[in-house]
Amino acid sequence: MPRMNIAIDMMGGDFAPLEVVKGIQRYISRNEDAAVLFCIGDEEAIKPLIAEYNLPAAHIRIIHAPEVIGYHEPPTRALKEKKHSSISIGFHLLASGKADAFISAGNTGAMLVGTMYSIKTIEGISRPTIATIIPKLNGKTGLLLDVGLNADCKPEQLNQFALLGSLYARHILNIEDPRVGLLNVGEEEGKGNILAQTTYPLLKENSSINFTGNVEGRDFLQDKADVIVCDGFTGNIILKMAESIYDIAIARNLENDEYFHRFHYENYGGTPVLGVSKPVIIGHGISNDKAFMNMILVAEKMIATDFCETLKQAFHSEN
Amino acid sequence: MPRMNIAIDMMGGDFAPLEVVKGIQRYISRNEDAAVLFCIGDEEAIKPLIAEYNLPAAHIRIIHAPEVIGYHEPPTRALKEKKHSSISIGFHLLASGKADAFISAGNTGAMLVGTMYSIKTIEGISRPTIATIIPKLNGKTGLLLDVGLNADCKPEQLNQFALLGSLYARHILNIEDPRVGLLNVGEEEGKGNILAQTTYPLLKENSSINFTGNVEGRDFLQDKADVIVCDGFTGNIILKMAESIYDIAIARNLENDEYFHRFHYENYGGTPVLGVSKPVIIGHGISNDKAFMNMILVAEKMIATDFCETLKQAFHSEN
Repeated sequence: MPRMNIAIDMMGGDFAPLEVVKGIQRYISRNEDAAVLFCIGDEEAIKPLIAEYNLPAAHIRIIHAPEVIGYHEPPTRALKEKKHSSISIGFHLLASGKADAFISAGNTGAMLVGTMYSIKTIEGISRPTIATIIPKLNGKTGLLLDVGLNADCKPEQLNQFALLGSLYARHILNIEDPRVGLLNVGEEEGKGNILAQTTYPLLKENSSINFTGNVEGRDFLQDKADVIVCDGFTGNIILKMAESIYDIAIARNLENDEYFHRFHYENYGGTPVLGVSKPVIIGHGISNDKAFMNMILVAEKMIATDFCETLKQAFHSEN
Repeated sequence: MPRMNIAIDMMGGDFAPLEVVKGIQRYISRNEDAAVLFCIGDEEAIKPLIAEYNLPAAHIRIIHAPEVIGYHEPPTRALKEKKHSSISIGFHLLASGKADAFISAGNTGAMLVGTMYSIKTIEGISRPTIATIIPKLNGKTGLLLDVGLNADCKPEQLNQFALLGSLYARHILNIEDPRVGLLNVGEEEGKGNILAQTTYPLLKENSSINFTGNVEGRDFLQDKADVIVCDGFTGNIILKMAESIYDIAIARNLENDEYFHRFHYENYGGTPVLGVSKPVIIGHGISNDKAFMNMILVAEKMIATDFCETLKQAFHSEN
């Protein structure tokens, strides 16, 4: 009997539901102890695909959702009006405890609004955040946050992101004693905009993290820190610029270069929302099978390590 | 008789004065109508090199500077205490009208402080700015500003940067009717942090520029806009990250790739300070001969087109 239930939006993403089904197949085929997938979507569209790809019944529960929230719908209104959309149902399953995690590559805004309104923010956390993986030149992996949930940030929030990112790096990315860096325009304390200047002393005094100082744009792909914190405006621009490095690779016929390929979104495994009481993973709109498989693997690991409980305890003891 | 005088700091940069001399040689050898170079530095160090590289006497005036401002000296104090440093003398020549432009790859902070205190900001301009070249995937060239002079910005300042950048793109980069984009986290108006949200309507209403909307991180190397405006914190991080793309190329043995090579700092020709009444070009600390040649060429073009006068008129009519 599988020990966890992961809800997944079968209708989210440009290539849904086909690539979602293929991603589930890849996930199940490599995991003997795979989770049960709650496949939320238009029954008529997904049933034949699930049959075609031989997804094993013991791991699949189809949950019919007659509505879909489109990419360009205003999130709050869409969630309110489309109670039977795959995203609304996913959050309902998560909030009620039937599912242990929820994954979607659908409307990002609806995913964020849904997270904020249906899943509680962990006590003591001012604002949840979203993070992305950084592929470093030396082969290692780092974490950048916030990458867009909080366009304007306060120093206290960046300080919390530092702890959230550290815990994610340690428990999900298996980085021991992760080094935290502050994204900045110079190396020395006192450099930067007002936000960076006022955040630096908070990070320096934070005994729950291993703060190692400022990280400049040129060090971004180097191994100067494992977790880099910044406001969501800067982080989002960097995230998208890093993705465009893969576009350069394609344009220069280098998409098979081992390093450049690591910038391919499919390897990220989606963007976890950190700081809320249950695992929510938001996928890229163009997610393919590998991306969906990786998102399920991240969700699985967050459940298996009881990551949200770790956050609760960490921020409980902070207060 | 050469028509212009360009002052250059022979002591600025990790490879000075040798690379400066070589850069001057490259510049003079390809320009029949080359400017006179005021070579400011330690006479004993530069005289033999100037002889060795056969720099023609008609184009060279050696100006002895017994002091040098080091890379790690606090700018304001260094400028005050070292009146006979190459940077102090350069600004003196520029301010007094003896030189038409000043170039240095020395202490960036001292160059910025020197600019602010010895050269007037053009009337009507709230804050000068520094810009960098963006090498686009389609072979074209764009401009990003501010890249670090103003870590915190007001919307009115970004609006002025848009005009400064447009004029630079038109007159120095020869881009006709340059399109201006606002660096942002989404395409639609209303997206972004408070700064971006409040800047957008100003740009939209600015009839002196050709505003074409928001530019996301992923469009940064695409040809969506010719001039991209942002605050100096974000701009500096992007500038340094773009430079690190060349580091990736080296690590992947691609430094000779035609596109990646365009990220090499030597092609930038330094960073012009825009919004002040005379041309000042700040070079990268690791500037080589080509970088110095390009900086002289940019200074020459700024003088030849009377660029600062264009700015004065543009901002005069704005007020």
